[in-house]
Amino acid sequence: MKQRILGIDPGLQRTGFGLIDQDGARLRYVSSGVIKTESRAGLAQRIQTIVQGIASISHEAQPDCAAVEIVFVNVNPQSTLLLGQARGAALAALVLAQLPVHEYTALQVKQATVGYGKAKKEQVQDMVMRLLQLPSAPQSDAADALACAITHAHSAGRQIKGGRMKLS
Amino acid sequence: MKQRILGIDPGLQRTGFGLIDQDGARLRYVSSGVIKTESRAGLAQRIQTIVQGIASISHEAQPDCAAVEIVFVNVNPQSTLLLGQARGAALAALVLAQLPVHEYTALQVKQATVGYGKAKKEQVQDMVMRLLQLPSAPQSDAADALACAITHAHSAGRQIKGGRMKLS
Repeated sequence: MKQRILGIDPGLQRTGFGLIDQDGARLRYVSSGVIKTESRAGLAQRIQTIVQGIASISHEAQPDCAAVEIVFVNVNPQSTLLLGQARGAALAALVLAQLPVHEYTALQVKQATVGYGKAKKEQVQDMVMRLLQLPSAPQSDAADALACAITHAHSAGRQIKGGRMKLS
Repeated sequence: MKQRILGIDPGLQRTGFGLIDQDGARLRYVSSGVIKTESRAGLAQRIQTIVQGIASISHEAQPDCAAVEIVFVNVNPQSTLLLGQARGAALAALVLAQLPVHEYTALQVKQATVGYGKAKKEQVQDMVMRLLQLPSAPQSDAADALACAITHAHSAGRQIKGGRMKLS
C-alpha cells in the first residue's frame, strides 16, 4: 500500500508536523518542521497561525491521510484548555483539507516506534532518525509528529469519517 | 455604524450561533440556532460538523465580524479538554472565514445584556428576547450566542488580528 501520511503533534506554542511516504513496509522521509506561534499574540491569532500552517502544508504536500497524537489533560487546567483549543484548531484544519484523521495515544506512538510505552523523548527522536535514515535527529515536536505518522504506517488505525450537521 | 455580527457560544455537543444586524444603537435579529454533534461520533467527526456548520453560516450570512464567548476550565479536566477542542475548532472556522474575532467572558456578556454579572441563563434568554423583540425566547445556546453578539454591538471589543507562521 502506497500512501503519504501527515503526522501532527498539536500544541498552542509549537505544533510539530512530519510527512512520510509509505510503500508497503518501506518508509521514506518527506519533510518535517514546527509551526510556531507567538506567545504574546491573542488566542485567535495563534489559532490562525496553526490553521494556516497546516492548510498550507496539506495543500503543498497533498498527503492521503493524517495521524494526530491524542493529548491528555494536564496538571494545570488552564494549560489543558489551551492545548485543547490548539488541538481542536489542528483537527479543524485537517478535516477542512478533507484528510481522513487517525488518532494515536502517546503510548501507542512510543510502542510503535521505540517498542516501549514509557520511552523518553530522546529515544523517540533517535528511533525516528534511524527508521527514516535521517542524518540527524529532528527537533522534538517534529520527531513526535513523524513518530505519529510512522505509528499510522505500522497500523490499520481507527479512521474517523465525515459528520452530520443540524441547524435549528 | 452598520455591521452584521455573528455570535458563537462554542461547545462540543451544542454550538450556539446568533446573527444580528447593528445600525448605530438599533439591533435587528437575523437568525440563530444550534449546531449539534452526535455524542457517539468520533472527535474529528464532531469537529468537522462544528467547522462546516460555522463555515456555511458565515458563507450564507456574510457577517462582518464574530463575537465568541471565552470558556473557562471545568471541574472535570476531560470536559475542559473537550470544550477546548470544540472552541479551537470554532475559532479556526471563524478565522478561516476571515472574520475578525472578538472575545467576551460570560461575565461581560451577562453585564452587557442583563446588567448583572451573576444573571441566570433564563434571565439572559429573557433579555435577548426583549432586546431583539423576538416573539419567544431562543433556545439557551442560541440565546447565549445572540447575547455575545449583542455584547459586541454594545462594546468597542478587543479585536484579534492575523498571525505569523514559521516553518522550519
